[in-house]
Amino acid sequence: MAEVKQTVVEGVDALTLNGKSDADTVETATDAQAQETAGDEATTNADDVVDPWNVASSNDAGVDYDKLIKRFGSSKIDDELIARFEKITGKPAHHFLRRGLFFSHRDLHTILTLREQGKPFYLYTGRGPSSGSLHIGHLVPFIMTKWLQETFDVPLIIQLTDDEKTLWKDLKIEEAIKLARENAKDIVAMGFDVNKTFIFNNLEFMGKCPAMYQNIIRIQKCVTFNQVKGIFGFGDSDIIGKIGFPAAQAAPALSSTFPFIFGNKKVHCLIPCAIDQDPYFRMTRDVAPRLGFPKCALLHSSFFPALQGAKTKMSASEQNSAVFLTDTPKQVKNKINKYAFSGGRVTVEEHRKLGGIPDIDVAYQLLKFFLEDDTKLEEVRVAYSKGEMLTGEIKKLAIETVTPIVEQHQAARKLITDEVLDKYFELRPLKYGS
Amino acid sequence: MAEVKQTVVEGVDALTLNGKSDADTVETATDAQAQETAGDEATTNADDVVDPWNVASSNDAGVDYDKLIKRFGSSKIDDELIARFEKITGKPAHHFLRRGLFFSHRDLHTILTLREQGKPFYLYTGRGPSSGSLHIGHLVPFIMTKWLQETFDVPLIIQLTDDEKTLWKDLKIEEAIKLARENAKDIVAMGFDVNKTFIFNNLEFMGKCPAMYQNIIRIQKCVTFNQVKGIFGFGDSDIIGKIGFPAAQAAPALSSTFPFIFGNKKVHCLIPCAIDQDPYFRMTRDVAPRLGFPKCALLHSSFFPALQGAKTKMSASEQNSAVFLTDTPKQVKNKINKYAFSGGRVTVEEHRKLGGIPDIDVAYQLLKFFLEDDTKLEEVRVAYSKGEMLTGEIKKLAIETVTPIVEQHQAARKLITDEVLDKYFELRPLKYGS
Repeated sequence: MAEVKQTVVEGVDALTLNGKSDADTVETATDAQAQETAGDEATTNADDVVDPWNVASSNDAGVDYDKLIKRFGSSKIDDELIARFEKITGKPAHHFLRRGLFFSHRDLHTILTLREQGKPFYLYTGRGPSSGSLHIGHLVPFIMTKWLQETFDVPLIIQLTDDEKTLWKDLKIEEAIKLARENAKDIVAMGFDVNKTFIFNNLEFMGKCPAMYQNIIRIQKCVTFNQVKGIFGFGDSDIIGKIGFPAAQAAPALSSTFPFIFGNKKVHCLIPCAIDQDPYFRMTRDVAPRLGFPKCALLHSSFFPALQGAKTKMSASEQNSAVFLTDTPKQVKNKINKYAFSGGRVTVEEHRKLGGIPDIDVAYQLLKFFLEDDTKLEEVRVAYSKGEMLTGEIKKLAIETVTPIVEQHQAARKLITDEVLDKYFELRPLKYGS
Repeated sequence: MAEVKQTVVEGVDALTLNGKSDADTVETATDAQAQETAGDEATTNADDVVDPWNVASSNDAGVDYDKLIKRFGSSKIDDELIARFEKITGKPAHHFLRRGLFFSHRDLHTILTLREQGKPFYLYTGRGPSSGSLHIGHLVPFIMTKWLQETFDVPLIIQLTDDEKTLWKDLKIEEAIKLARENAKDIVAMGFDVNKTFIFNNLEFMGKCPAMYQNIIRIQKCVTFNQVKGIFGFGDSDIIGKIGFPAAQAAPALSSTFPFIFGNKKVHCLIPCAIDQDPYFRMTRDVAPRLGFPKCALLHSSFFPALQGAKTKMSASEQNSAVFLTDTPKQVKNKINKYAFSGGRVTVEEHRKLGGIPDIDVAYQLLKFFLEDDTKLEEVRVAYSKGEMLTGEIKKLAIETVTPIVEQHQAARKLITDEVLDKYFELRPLKYGS
């Protein structure tokens, strides 16, 4: 699931959608059937591309998420769901939810009902370790996941798909394993509770837990090449490693993959991830009931913009496309000032007169993700829209908001020794409330 | 590699050959290039079918092995090679070799040269555990392998492809693992030296040795769907588990799959197997050099006939198609008398006059495999051909030859407890001469 992070950082360009068309609510159509019709839809609704390897939009504001929900057949996170969420958890929803940064879901109501009934579930997320240094966008799914874990007091599984990165990139096994461990240090530095969190990388975990391979074989027995062709766009000239890989990302959504945590219980699973990962879990949701497991629930995030704006592709090799977690305060300041795409006007006069456009302004987007104070954010939005606040001022606020996050992360990461990390990777029972 | 046994027991029917066309000796053509042209050849030379899942011939004497060598691009085991073999090992070649029951090879000269130079190599063979009870044909590759191990004093790896059987058959993971262990008891009962032999089943070993999965990913990165389509005939409606599986059978041909035996040494490998398994190892031979490993050498056996003759399909579910290792002496006697296809004539008078046909006579074939005395076998052949020996007499000799083998096997198998078996499955260094 390296792609959770990979595509979160990616931008936009324009093309077709590789998704499903039927609504999740149409009870008669399975996720799989929906996938099969997606190909036709894609060509007729050609505007955004969203799949695990590509995210592209021709719009300055980025991907049209309402369209995406319709095409993927997921459900919108609406006020009613948030209200139910707050009622059941007894606390305000995270600002990622309130602000629509996590905007789509599958079966989140089922998870809330389980909680109401005192029944267990677990969280599963992941990352594909394609680069040693993460940027702040990579934090997003993990911030959400950590909040969910703390809110529900449930076990969390984090998969590092170093096998996937070996297969897709020019990356050796040994290098991918090394990157997985480096990335895991960044994840652990976010403060996940070691008693409730299990982290693993496929290239090593596969050789430690027979249940993982056995579930992969079970899943691979339920999925044809035609299906992965339809879902992921694989072709005849693709390597067989790619064709088989989706099962490795699906397996952790079956609780029996972790007998040392769940025994032989069939526990529900909630997956927070960027929406480009949805194809993997549409496949998983079709297979799970055939293997006697519940369908995984999903919580989908929108994409984190590149500094150059939602149409530009971010990449770890392009240092100026994002604020990295290794940047100095000076680098953060310079990058945002120099590269952050502005929704402001060309001249101060014009800006004062017409106002800026927050929806396409990257500094504002950074605040939307990282400025927790709702009142202040709304003040900024209004002031910037009216032209009362200038581009330099909103950028200054973004710098002031992002810099301490980066600094705190660096301080926390320094404390993550190999010994600390190893504890998260150890196969063991987890301790949790439900 | 369940198929080593599976197809050894299978018969014949008629069709096309799914193999390669170029000779192994054509240095400019790789095994892979050869495979790609095989499709065309197959349709123009439509007579025998030989692939890992089907063996079929329209001829009473079975598959035309000379044609097969030409099409697969392997080399015939000729008198010169046998002479070199005997010179280097200092002992007579096994009667399987002398009688052409193992008739084809790839790079056996390389293995002999390694031995001359005092350099190491190891043996690798396997079985797909699709049935709990083996028949005497299943013993053939293991008899050869055991003799090679004793002759060369080298380590031996035996793979049980319970994952493959789960993917290809209506067989659950748990059942396949159980069959793997049952079959392993039969293999161990043949007397393999525990100090020199490592046995594993994929569904459990994958979860014990990270190097196995890592090598599978390395191999799967080198092979496209187009290639496995050409080599194995996979199609778009095949499950993705089948498409990825060939890498699991290829991995043990890379010595780094077993770091606990070979460390990080790149050791040559010799694979005795039925020739229907050759497609797996043509693929392996193409991939190995790209990963920095030597190409595996091969020693190919012919197919073991069903009792009903070389055109009939043997199957474990058809108890009367073979002598099983669990049969009583009475069952052996009845089966051979009643079902063994006869190359004799319709009446005794005619038989005395025209003589029998050993090549299509199953009793004679049983003797060819299991009667070690060359002089006696030749006497039988001559007498039967001349009509001096009757069908009842040759069947009686076959019964007398096969029955003690079955009885001895049963006695030896009784001694194989779970504790004895576990020792062969334990990940550990092996002790061997070279």
